[in-house]
Amino acid sequence: MLPDSVSEYLRAHQSAHLAKLIELLRFPSVANDKESDACEQAAEWLRVHLTELGLEARVVPTSNKPNVIASTQVDEDLPTLRIYGHYDVQPADPLELWQSEPFEPEVRDGYLYARAASDDKGQFFTHLMAIEAFKHGAGGLPINLKLFIEGEEEIGSPDLEPFLADHARELKADAVVISDGGFFADGSPSLMYSLRGLAYVEVTFHGPDRDLHSGQHGGAVANPVNAVAKLVAAMHDSSGRVTIPGFYDDVVELTDAERAEWAALPFDEQAYAESLGVEALSGGEQGLTVLERRWGRPTLDCNGVVGGYGGPGAKTIIPASASAKISMRLVPNQVPEKIVAAFKRFVAEHTPPGIGAEVEVHAGARPVRLGRDSAAMEAARRAYREAFGKLPVMIGCGASVPIGELFQRLLGLDAVLLSFGLPDDNVHSPNERFRLDQLYRGALAAAAFMNNLGGG
Amino acid sequence: MLPDSVSEYLRAHQSAHLAKLIELLRFPSVANDKESDACEQAAEWLRVHLTELGLEARVVPTSNKPNVIASTQVDEDLPTLRIYGHYDVQPADPLELWQSEPFEPEVRDGYLYARAASDDKGQFFTHLMAIEAFKHGAGGLPINLKLFIEGEEEIGSPDLEPFLADHARELKADAVVISDGGFFADGSPSLMYSLRGLAYVEVTFHGPDRDLHSGQHGGAVANPVNAVAKLVAAMHDSSGRVTIPGFYDDVVELTDAERAEWAALPFDEQAYAESLGVEALSGGEQGLTVLERRWGRPTLDCNGVVGGYGGPGAKTIIPASASAKISMRLVPNQVPEKIVAAFKRFVAEHTPPGIGAEVEVHAGARPVRLGRDSAAMEAARRAYREAFGKLPVMIGCGASVPIGELFQRLLGLDAVLLSFGLPDDNVHSPNERFRLDQLYRGALAAAAFMNNLGGG
Repeated sequence: MLPDSVSEYLRAHQSAHLAKLIELLRFPSVANDKESDACEQAAEWLRVHLTELGLEARVVPTSNKPNVIASTQVDEDLPTLRIYGHYDVQPADPLELWQSEPFEPEVRDGYLYARAASDDKGQFFTHLMAIEAFKHGAGGLPINLKLFIEGEEEIGSPDLEPFLADHARELKADAVVISDGGFFADGSPSLMYSLRGLAYVEVTFHGPDRDLHSGQHGGAVANPVNAVAKLVAAMHDSSGRVTIPGFYDDVVELTDAERAEWAALPFDEQAYAESLGVEALSGGEQGLTVLERRWGRPTLDCNGVVGGYGGPGAKTIIPASASAKISMRLVPNQVPEKIVAAFKRFVAEHTPPGIGAEVEVHAGARPVRLGRDSAAMEAARRAYREAFGKLPVMIGCGASVPIGELFQRLLGLDAVLLSFGLPDDNVHSPNERFRLDQLYRGALAAAAFMNNLGGG
Repeated sequence: MLPDSVSEYLRAHQSAHLAKLIELLRFPSVANDKESDACEQAAEWLRVHLTELGLEARVVPTSNKPNVIASTQVDEDLPTLRIYGHYDVQPADPLELWQSEPFEPEVRDGYLYARAASDDKGQFFTHLMAIEAFKHGAGGLPINLKLFIEGEEEIGSPDLEPFLADHARELKADAVVISDGGFFADGSPSLMYSLRGLAYVEVTFHGPDRDLHSGQHGGAVANPVNAVAKLVAAMHDSSGRVTIPGFYDDVVELTDAERAEWAALPFDEQAYAESLGVEALSGGEQGLTVLERRWGRPTLDCNGVVGGYGGPGAKTIIPASASAKISMRLVPNQVPEKIVAAFKRFVAEHTPPGIGAEVEVHAGARPVRLGRDSAAMEAARRAYREAFGKLPVMIGCGASVPIGELFQRLLGLDAVLLSFGLPDDNVHSPNERFRLDQLYRGALAAAAFMNNLGGG
């Protein structure tokens, strides 16, 4: 159990911590804003603050925005925890939809409103609050720490993989916690253990060597847009299954236990449909629940088609080329490279005469299944119960969390995704917010997690 | 037979006529260039020139660029011929691909190079040369004339239908000739009698009320791009036939005579494929020749798809909506309105649950079959033989020629398409040109046509 001194300290310093977090939120640290030095300023602010907390901290440049690394060694016999967060933020536009300025944080009705309040400054700040509470409230940390606070998460972490490879020894730890996500629902603390992977490809069909008049030549030549449409359409059968041969070969089927666990989650399909503005949840494979389709099954979506005339009104052409961007979400044990190879074979088989085909691979990420029964997971379960009064639900995620996969693959450790956001935090949107009790209880959970990991 | 005096006059005045045409070609009369008054200047130049030729000529404003109308009444017992051309031109860009300036005409190797040399200033100018030859070489015209020279053809003639309705009486004639096309091949004067119509529609599928993260939600909701692809793909069967119920109901089948006539044309499929930069001519319905597919059968082409992300690289979204622009080329006796109605029913039947559909109609044009056996057609046949030494081939056209349909529908007259362009005139492209002997023989043909129509 977390020492009372720590929880007392956190309770007594809520206003002070809020004020400090507000300082951090004032930096408009948008990673893709090359003109601004707000990222450098935020990183420096973090370095100073972490140093004040007694950590050895430094700002490490990358080719874009710097990362912040900090560590403290309490006792070599204690385990070491790596904490991940990111201080860079999504752009704030459209500005006119914000009720208060995105970089002038404001508290209203128990929420802290600001860009990055939830994603991710507010969430990783809970660990800094916990560190301070141990240092000043309980005489010291129960565990060794290594912090890694990234500056490029919102632009796809272009420097992350080489950075991790370069700093593998420095970041070596016994457990790793990522706080950059959220509860499954308000009142449902969650541990995410199953994350889909990604294979993102773009197929281009080339037809005539220039746009042709569709009247003069319509009926003579294969039309690349028609052909791309046929190709994309052929990728699903009428039951919603992906038809690419071999696509499901490596898929680990959901267990009955897992399906039962997910079925027990507080998920209202009708409310979900309404939140997306659709009348029916008709995507994916038939005969499965929505959560099974989103978390436990691979999917294929066309993310965009470009071909021919897209302006207003009519232009009568047979376009020279057309392309489709396609994302395939993968589940264990699908391998992006194998899926891409199968995709390419499928394209080759579905390329009509008179058309040339080209496939470009934009991104790949392996699906991740994090160990559910590790000591770190158990420490997280107990931490949630101590801070929020209930054990977490075990959930999946339809999206990829590349950092989780990279930590697993490059640093050999399954992360714990200990997160405190709520579904209505408006992350990436105007009026982003973080509920104050999630911030304060989050800090309690972060402290309890350190304590549990340290054997306390 | 054309009086020798007329052909002598034309032969003697080739240089003078060329110089005059070059004056007209110097106007950069691009109809969609709202800043420029080059169209007004070109129209005024035509008014002055036609007045010099003894016609009553005037410039008539429209909501965009003016038209030029001119007439001359020789004898009320003689038939009246309406001549159609257009003085507006396609934009000249990309300028860097021109060997000489588009609006500084240049003669090289027997060709006159300039924007509109062939389309259409050079072609309708043949009639002005013929008029001059009759007036000054033979003592007078053999026929009454009404000229209508349009200023908005290249921007889709937005004012044409009301203009024709307003000027129906003024433009009343016994025959009408349109010179805005070309030979089927070099050495093959042609009379085009079968023109496809058009139904141009745009279908939009609406899914979620905003773009969704394809990872988080992929598998839950129907994806509008996937759905549009499926819809477009469903519009053809594997033999290339359009699957929309009722699509072929009103199609007049080609006769064996027509198929034989087209099969006898000097058409090299391989050379045609090469000219389009494709390896195979795999569009349209199986079991038909390329010309049958282009001229004699209806087709459906997707002219553009817009949906989702079209920028560089990857963006993982399920787009809120996707749309496809679709042109259907129609043959007699298909009716655009009936085809659009069938299309809408097809869309309704192929709209998946969770998707809303919308169909917008951008354009419609009826297919036209011009009388092959009229006196005017016979006059044109003989005119071609007199000027070019051989009878014309009878051809179709895959595109619509709206003016032909409008003249037929609004003014009750089947046009004769007496044209002198060649397939390699580069119309609408850089280095547009008109072969000088086509210009000079074209003027002979135009004169012979007037003479034949007048009973000469």
